[in-house]
Amino acid sequence: MSIITLITDFGTVDGYVGAMKGVILSLAPHVQIVDITHEIPPQAIRQAAWALATAARHFPPGTVHVVVVDPGVGGERRPLALERDGQFFVGPDNGVFTPFLPASACVALTEPVYHHHPVSATFHGRDIFAPVAAHIVLGVPLSKFGPPVADPVRLPPPRLEVQAEGQILGEVVHIDRFGNGITSIGPLRWQGHLLALGGEAATGLALGGERVVGASVPSLTFHAQRVVVEVGGRRLAGIHRTYSEGMPGEALALVGSSGYLEIAVREGSAARALALRPGDPVMLKVLR
Amino acid sequence: MSIITLITDFGTVDGYVGAMKGVILSLAPHVQIVDITHEIPPQAIRQAAWALATAARHFPPGTVHVVVVDPGVGGERRPLALERDGQFFVGPDNGVFTPFLPASACVALTEPVYHHHPVSATFHGRDIFAPVAAHIVLGVPLSKFGPPVADPVRLPPPRLEVQAEGQILGEVVHIDRFGNGITSIGPLRWQGHLLALGGEAATGLALGGERVVGASVPSLTFHAQRVVVEVGGRRLAGIHRTYSEGMPGEALALVGSSGYLEIAVREGSAARALALRPGDPVMLKVLR
Amino acid sequence: MSIITLITDFGTVDGYVGAMKGVILSLAPHVQIVDITHEIPPQAIRQAAWALATAARHFPPGTVHVVVVDPGVGGERRPLALERDGQFFVGPDNGVFTPFLPASACVALTEPVYHHHPVSATFHGRDIFAPVAAHIVLGVPLSKFGPPVADPVRLPPPRLEVQAEGQILGEVVHIDRFGNGITSIGPLRWQGHLLALGGEAATGLALGGERVVGASVPSLTFHAQRVVVEVGGRRLAGIHRTYSEGMPGEALALVGSSGYLEIAVREGSAARALALRPGDPVMLKVLR
Repeated sequence: MSIITLITDFGTVDGYVGAMKGVILSLAPHVQIVDITHEIPPQAIRQAAWALATAARHFPPGTVHVVVVDPGVGGERRPLALERDGQFFVGPDNGVFTPFLPASACVALTEPVYHHHPVSATFHGRDIFAPVAAHIVLGVPLSKFGPPVADPVRLPPPRLEVQAEGQILGEVVHIDRFGNGITSIGPLRWQGHLLALGGEAATGLALGGERVVGASVPSLTFHAQRVVVEVGGRRLAGIHRTYSEGMPGEALALVGSSGYLEIAVREGSAARALALRPGDPVMLKVLR
Repeated sequence: MSIITLITDFGTVDGYVGAMKGVILSLAPHVQIVDITHEIPPQAIRQAAWALATAARHFPPGTVHVVVVDPGVGGERRPLALERDGQFFVGPDNGVFTPFLPASACVALTEPVYHHHPVSATFHGRDIFAPVAAHIVLGVPLSKFGPPVADPVRLPPPRLEVQAEGQILGEVVHIDRFGNGITSIGPLRWQGHLLALGGEAATGLALGGERVVGASVPSLTFHAQRVVVEVGGRRLAGIHRTYSEGMPGEALALVGSSGYLEIAVREGSAARALALRPGDPVMLKVLR
Repeated sequence: MSIITLITDFGTVDGYVGAMKGVILSLAPHVQIVDITHEIPPQAIRQAAWALATAARHFPPGTVHVVVVDPGVGGERRPLALERDGQFFVGPDNGVFTPFLPASACVALTEPVYHHHPVSATFHGRDIFAPVAAHIVLGVPLSKFGPPVADPVRLPPPRLEVQAEGQILGEVVHIDRFGNGITSIGPLRWQGHLLALGGEAATGLALGGERVVGASVPSLTFHAQRVVVEVGGRRLAGIHRTYSEGMPGEALALVGSSGYLEIAVREGSAARALALRPGDPVMLKVLR
């Protein structure tokens, strides 16, 4: 069975998502439609990219991921389909696919035969992205949908600087539902009691895609208990493995489930306790 | 594969929707259940009808749409199943199916052999509508479920009056998740730079179903840039194609994705900016 | 087709649920994933147990129910899989499965070959519970996942005391989306105008599972109109069948869809009108 996943900022109450599902199932009745989320805040491209990065890499090859967070609908921005590692991505060219760039193929969706007519100027989710996703599942190669695109839009990478020996400046990139603050510092791998930053693990797609591949993050290894993390006016001692290593209500730093440094409060909200917001600086200092 | 869609005001947190899904899949294990929405505000029949009208017409023939927004559960209101254009609709007789009336067949769900027992007096979604939907998918004809119903309840149509030559009075019928105000003025079709109101296009089901069929909306054609739209104490010049024709923060009128006049603010909320509410008057004046 | 249902406190906006779905579908592409809810308040184990009890018993045998409300993730609490009446349950050992205890089989999930690697310390939903659920669908017997567990955690049962002849003290156990207060008084069965409490019907799983099985709730039969219900400082006369037996805005007691005494306000919220909260006492007095 083929899979099409959906990420939108539509909510569900208006029936817009339902319309997209109807278009998909009318063309490809045997597809399994998987809701990732429809609760992206309106026009929050970066949050949509985050949800996509978190979820998509766990799906099997052949999956088509449709993302419709599209403030520029009907304007100059191109509608895109792209391929990466055997998965497909369909949506607007506004940076939402940054974690999966560069793509092995990328095209603009200009060929009207694969669209749902009449194509409205305000609802490309229903009229362009949904039917193109269904046609990909039906076996239409990307090259049929339109001309190649060499320069899909990328979001600027979050801050991540190695300032002096063993002093790393990052930022809060996402506040999750639990109030955990996920940071740009990573990817981090446990090696016994040590943590390894960057290096080979940096080929992961979790946060910034291409940004963290290669030489831009120097390899660095340190003892997890011999660091301090400065964030939100607080100094947190050591990097932990689980929430349960803290006392209830206590802030702590740990390695989150995507491999990035995360600020959490056990059975509480770090965002509330430390007044964290995306963009706040986070400093990791390795102690001598 | 057969499809059953769900629209409810249950939310998901209590497990009521889950119970309905279990009943459906116990009877018809191969059905694909498609969530349209469970976030209709409690007992908001008109909003449920809106979500249904927006989504249902895009599904393939044979689809069964279940709507459970049912303030009268257990009382006098009849439980219904109806057919229109090869699709099926199951739910309470309270007007929620107005956009799909008249139906080609409509019955009351009185035959207990197709219900889930014991039938509770307060949860017909689980005990009547879900199992009847599953039996429709399994091939049971509507006539088996109970006696025909000739007069299903209809919601009153929204206001739409052609007051003088080229002056059309409608109303805001829905505020969507983005704060766009969708109006009763339509359906509108682009013909180059002209817009055609009513006429043949008026057979669409999008807004008021039967209301817009036939002669009640006179055909009218006008230049999209030679009109003003008066709404929320503002005069908006011209009718646009896309949100991106406005400046960020600017209110504009456009033709929405269902073909009706819509009031929007680019990257903002028209509902907030113009204090729009459902029922507010909207006047379209064709300039001479 | 096999079914895996999901109950989490993840919301959907972060993509965590999407990651779980990807892991499941990578292992078992033909499974139908059914969302029960992702809107459990963070770490609200009792509410998750409620949603599970409400929904799960309606699914067919073979269904696998995954529950991830897991404040103790990465700590001492065991990850579990259990079987009851031909259905399977996968999640943390924190009491969330109480309504389905005792299980016919219960194991700790210690065998790493069935996990998703690397296993993070903070996201067992993706790395342990999702892949184990997929493996159950693929036919792996529970005994392969790890050693048996004899003492899964149980939540304390809600209060239900027969204080004197015909005087029953219970409590509000759940406030639902509509503001209905569901109580611990039940299960109740209609017998004409009479209501029967306990007895054979008490084998149901709806509320407290094992708690209500057997002799702990004495059989009691009374006339539904010859009782008063005291709750929230109010005395409500009689027990009704449907919301529509009340006047709009009026509080009334009825038998809810799971067979338990429920406090409701027609077209309104009993929780708001009577300031109800979980744990509030409810007294049912049979009149002589």
